[in-house]
Amino acid sequence: MEKTRISLKEIYEPIQAYLPRVEEEIFSILATPNELSAEVVQHFFRNKGKYLRPALTLFGASFGASVELDAIRAGAAFEIFHSATLIHDDIIDSAYVRRNLPTVNVKWSSQVAVLVGDYLHDKAIETIFSVKNDRVIAAFLKTAGIVCDGEILELKEKNNFNLKEKAYLSIIERKTASLLATCLESGAILGGLITERVAALERYGHYFGMAFQVIDDCLDFMGEENEFGKTLGADLQAGVLTLPLIRLIEFLDEPAKAEIFSKVKSGLGHSKLSDLVHLLHEYGALEYALAKAREFTDCAALELTVFPKSPSRTSLETLLQYVLERSS
Amino acid sequence: MEKTRISLKEIYEPIQAYLPRVEEEIFSILATPNELSAEVVQHFFRNKGKYLRPALTLFGASFGASVELDAIRAGAAFEIFHSATLIHDDIIDSAYVRRNLPTVNVKWSSQVAVLVGDYLHDKAIETIFSVKNDRVIAAFLKTAGIVCDGEILELKEKNNFNLKEKAYLSIIERKTASLLATCLESGAILGGLITERVAALERYGHYFGMAFQVIDDCLDFMGEENEFGKTLGADLQAGVLTLPLIRLIEFLDEPAKAEIFSKVKSGLGHSKLSDLVHLLHEYGALEYALAKAREFTDCAALELTVFPKSPSRTSLETLLQYVLERSS
Repeated sequence: MEKTRISLKEIYEPIQAYLPRVEEEIFSILATPNELSAEVVQHFFRNKGKYLRPALTLFGASFGASVELDAIRAGAAFEIFHSATLIHDDIIDSAYVRRNLPTVNVKWSSQVAVLVGDYLHDKAIETIFSVKNDRVIAAFLKTAGIVCDGEILELKEKNNFNLKEKAYLSIIERKTASLLATCLESGAILGGLITERVAALERYGHYFGMAFQVIDDCLDFMGEENEFGKTLGADLQAGVLTLPLIRLIEFLDEPAKAEIFSKVKSGLGHSKLSDLVHLLHEYGALEYALAKAREFTDCAALELTVFPKSPSRTSLETLLQYVLERSS
Repeated sequence: MEKTRISLKEIYEPIQAYLPRVEEEIFSILATPNELSAEVVQHFFRNKGKYLRPALTLFGASFGASVELDAIRAGAAFEIFHSATLIHDDIIDSAYVRRNLPTVNVKWSSQVAVLVGDYLHDKAIETIFSVKNDRVIAAFLKTAGIVCDGEILELKEKNNFNLKEKAYLSIIERKTASLLATCLESGAILGGLITERVAALERYGHYFGMAFQVIDDCLDFMGEENEFGKTLGADLQAGVLTLPLIRLIEFLDEPAKAEIFSKVKSGLGHSKLSDLVHLLHEYGALEYALAKAREFTDCAALELTVFPKSPSRTSLETLLQYVLERSS
């Protein structure tokens, strides 16, 4: 029996009216007479993602008096920046598919993907600069560096089967949570919120981002192949260790560890993956990771208590449920 | 008999004292606890380049009352930005050697090169922002987009053997001249020069950049293998058409063109390259390109006439000679 799931559409209701304007902004910012760039942009944004970053920016602003053009532009800038990192990530992971379409590196080439990623990156920064709010610009530039740093760390730790939980958390903090926190922070600044509330929303974004990434990593070992448009065990096969496996490894002795690593290294077939998933359940490693995600969403929810009840606050609370439900 | 050549060291004399401070800034900006990033930075900056971009920034500022820390920081930012583009270019060209050292994509991987290029890019922008001059920030961000656009155009026109001179000039304007112009412009702004002089130095930078790139492209067909640390015919072999060949092609009938293209496509051995160089001379195509470069340096020199005689002005004049001499 199918459960009734919370939909993003419901959650986005308080800011829904602004999202088409974000989309218009994105296409207007990226409009170019350069035919190749234009083609790639059209392709990449054909199947738009969840627009999570613009949505969080708009939510941040929505706690203020009104949502102004600045927040819409900032939201567009964050989505463009995020898209740039995805295009570069797909080169790094040699990924074939993104949002059910061929990746830029596959449809064109890695070369095109490097340059178009750079182009989006530049445009994102130009847009944030045009918002002309020094706190937002500074926050964004700092975060851009941190995201990149997180990705370099992740790359460095590939195939490190002794990666510790603390190092993993530091990587996902950088590569995922920091940008989500900055979206909320920037929206809140542009909405004219007082410093304490800006900081509360930033922390919400941080905790939400941590939960979001831990769950995403758990999904790599859960559910049906392709349900989320991704291949099961894909992270591991690429040598990226995530929380469930890191937890499992803590319980194993050297020979058992060695057996798993040699299995992974020789390629993860369906049956090997089932064995691994079985082990993850046996040692409660997936459950451990999911509990960790819940700790993060609990912390996030706590940050919202300084805000009076409002549709936006309810949406951000529901968003936490939505993230946890993805794994149920 | 060896000619007495002008050295960059002599030219840089008026701003020489500031270059070590630029270098310190670069390493301080790029300092990071991330071991992999730190290693790559150490490697890439081991054999430093000509520091042309910081030097032009400092020259721009040197026409003002004094050279301040801001100009030094801006120069560092431009060098870091330029380095980011080189690291990404080397992925695109599958280059093995840069400044007599293995490229980042070869010594580590394309993946590392993508991310470290992004990291330098972010750091450059953060640094320019820290200079806190809106005109400089706006000029830099605009140029970053243009440079990227130029590189995308170049990639798109690879193997287009019907590339026209106008399109070629537009590509090199974007990928090379625009940044050099922005270095001088930014230095001049930070030096407190009046608008007309800022604009004159920007135009000097533009013409200088055009000449610089045309000569660089001519060198691909001139001199001895490896004299400039590059392989003869490398651009052409990568499918990049430059001015000498574009000029030659204008004179050839279809069968003669087809013969050249089929030669190039089957790989350029030493004898095929000699044939081609012979043709380039026969039709005066190299001479044509060099004359074009001289037109650009003449325009550049004219822009300097609004400045009273000074060591900096003399240096910028001599720099034009230096560029032309590279091909003699």
